[in-house]
Amino acid sequence: MKGAVIHAARDVRFEDVPSPKIEKPTDAVIRIAAACVCGSDLWPYRGANPITQPTPMGHEYCGVVEEVGKDVTRVKKGQFVIGSFFASDDSCPHCRAGYHSSCQHRELVAGAQAPFLRVPLADGTLVATREAPPADLVPSLLTASDVLGTGWFAAEAANVKPGMTVVVVGDGAVGLLAVLSARQKGAERIIAMSRHPARQKLAREFGATDIVTERGDEGVARIKELTKGVGADAVLECVGTQESMQQAIRSTRPGGTVGYVGVPHGVSLDGQALFFVHVRLFGGPAPVRRYLPELIGLVLAGKINPGKVFDLTLPLAEVAEGYRAMDERRAIKTLLRP
Amino acid sequence: MKGAVIHAARDVRFEDVPSPKIEKPTDAVIRIAAACVCGSDLWPYRGANPITQPTPMGHEYCGVVEEVGKDVTRVKKGQFVIGSFFASDDSCPHCRAGYHSSCQHRELVAGAQAPFLRVPLADGTLVATREAPPADLVPSLLTASDVLGTGWFAAEAANVKPGMTVVVVGDGAVGLLAVLSARQKGAERIIAMSRHPARQKLAREFGATDIVTERGDEGVARIKELTKGVGADAVLECVGTQESMQQAIRSTRPGGTVGYVGVPHGVSLDGQALFFVHVRLFGGPAPVRRYLPELIGLVLAGKINPGKVFDLTLPLAEVAEGYRAMDERRAIKTLLRP
Repeated sequence: MKGAVIHAARDVRFEDVPSPKIEKPTDAVIRIAAACVCGSDLWPYRGANPITQPTPMGHEYCGVVEEVGKDVTRVKKGQFVIGSFFASDDSCPHCRAGYHSSCQHRELVAGAQAPFLRVPLADGTLVATREAPPADLVPSLLTASDVLGTGWFAAEAANVKPGMTVVVVGDGAVGLLAVLSARQKGAERIIAMSRHPARQKLAREFGATDIVTERGDEGVARIKELTKGVGADAVLECVGTQESMQQAIRSTRPGGTVGYVGVPHGVSLDGQALFFVHVRLFGGPAPVRRYLPELIGLVLAGKINPGKVFDLTLPLAEVAEGYRAMDERRAIKTLLRP
Repeated sequence: MKGAVIHAARDVRFEDVPSPKIEKPTDAVIRIAAACVCGSDLWPYRGANPITQPTPMGHEYCGVVEEVGKDVTRVKKGQFVIGSFFASDDSCPHCRAGYHSSCQHRELVAGAQAPFLRVPLADGTLVATREAPPADLVPSLLTASDVLGTGWFAAEAANVKPGMTVVVVGDGAVGLLAVLSARQKGAERIIAMSRHPARQKLAREFGATDIVTERGDEGVARIKELTKGVGADAVLECVGTQESMQQAIRSTRPGGTVGYVGVPHGVSLDGQALFFVHVRLFGGPAPVRRYLPELIGLVLAGKINPGKVFDLTLPLAEVAEGYRAMDERRAIKTLLRP
C-alpha cells in the first residue's frame, strides 16, 4: 500500500510502505475511513523536531476493523471504530484514573495517513459505534481521535465551569475546538485570540463571544480590559511556544487555571514568577480515550459539529499538499480520504 | 520600643524602632501576644534575598487591638485578633474569589517581631476571636497567621481529598503542618520526607503514616515503591528549591497535583517535561485570610494542636538566638514572647 512518510523538514512523500498486519495478539488492523494532518505534525514538518529516519505519519484515525489479534475480545471485525493517538490498555492504574495517555503500557499510534493502520492494545484503545455512522458524520467523528479530544482536555484541565470567562490562545484547529469545548462546558464568555478572519468566523460559530487580535503585552492588556482588570477564570493554551504560554499565564486571574495542550517547544517557566501570580497549570497529551464515548455521543446526536475545522479535503495521494496548505496557513486542517 | 531588625545576612538585632501608629484611617495597631520566626525569614537571614537596608522583621502575629483608624468598623479596641502576612481588603474580586494574598490592594505586613504592630486594611485583614483565648492556645492561634495557613493551602492547592495518598516534601514547620492539614482533609496515607528524628516524630503525631528518609532519585524511587509504581495523588512541596520541586513533581502520579508553598528560589521548570508527566501545579503565597475563621475554630475546639511546632520559646529580646537555632536546625520553629 501507499502512505505518507516524512523524510526531512517539508518533505512528506506518498510512497510504498509495508501493509500493516497483526504483530501482537492484542492488535487490530483497521481500514481507514478518513485521516488528517495534525497541528503537531507541523513540528517535524517545520524542522522543530529532528527526523532521524523516514517516518510514517498520521495518528488521527477512524475506520472499520479489518482484522483482530487472538486476544482481542471487545472489538470485532466490521465495527466502525475511533481511537486515540496513544494506544492504552484501559486497565492500568493511570487509565483507571482517566489518564490513558499516561498508560503504563502506552504506545504511540503512527502511520494513520494510509489506507490501513495497525492499532496496538485494540481492546483498550478503540471505541466502536453501535452501527456504521452516516458518511457526513465521519469527519466529526475523526476529530474525536485527537483534535477535539485535545481541545476538550484543554477545557477540562483549565477547570472550565458554567458561567466562567475563558480565553483561548491559538486559533489552530485545537484552539477552535477548545472554543467549542468551553461552550459545551457552559462558559459564559469565550475570548478567542485570533487575527485570521476565517478562523475568527469559525471561532464565533463554535461559541466565541469576543475576538482579540492583539498579542503579547497588548493581548494581555486587552484581556485585562475585557475582564475589568481581573483576568480570565480559565485560559486554554493551544500553541506551545514560550510567548503563547506567557500570554496565557498573564491573562489568568489569581486562582485561575491555564490548561495547556500545545506540545511545549522551548517553554521554560520561572518558579518564582509562577508562584506569585497564583495560577494553576495543568496540561499534557490529552487522555482522549476517556472522552471518546462522550464525544462520539455528542457528534452522533448532532449536538456538535467539530468536523467544520476541515476546510480542505484531499485524496490521500495529495497528502504533501495537505501539509503545505496547513504550514502556509491556507488551510485550518486537512482531511485525507484514502 | 525595641524590635527585631535585620541588617545583613545572619545579623538580626533587637534594637530601637519607631513605635507603630495609625498612618491611614484603615489601619489598626495591635499589641503582640506572641510572634515567631518564619522559615521564609531564613531566606534573607541566609543571604538568599538581598538586604538593601535595615529591615524590621516578622509577619506572623496575633494580639490585642490597641487602636484603630477612623474608617475601621469591624475590628474593635480590646479584641484578640489574628491576621495574615498579607494585608487585604477582603472585598476586591481576588479576595471575593478567595485569593486574599493576591488582593488588588494587598500590603505586606512587616515588623511583627516587636511589642506592637501596625496592620494595614485592618477590617479586611484581621479576624477576631469571640473572647480572649486561653493562654495555652495562643501559640496554636499564632500558627494560623502563616505557617498553618500555608500548610493548609499546600493541601488545598494539591487537591487533597479523603482516601488519598499524599507526600509532603520538607520537614520544616510548614511541611509538618502540611501533614496535619492533609490529615484534616482526610488523606489516608501521608508520607513525610524527613531525615530528622524530632521532626519525624512530630510528623507522626500530626498524622504521617510513613516516613521516607531518602532524597532525590532514591527518594522518588522509594515513593514509587510505596505506591506500587503509581506515584502519589498529591504532593505538598514545602521547601522551594529546584531539587525539592523536581522531587515533588516526579513523585506525583499522572493526573495528580503538586501544591507548592515553599517560596521558589532558583526554580525553573521545563515546559515539555512538565507536559509529559501530566502533573497539575498550583501554589503561591497562601490566602491565609480565607482560612482564618476555619483554622481558628479548629484550634479553639481543640481539634488540632499546631502550636506543637514551636520547640523553642524565647523572650523577644533573644530573637537573634531564635534565628540561629532555626538556621542550624536546632529548632523547628521559634516562638517569641514580647
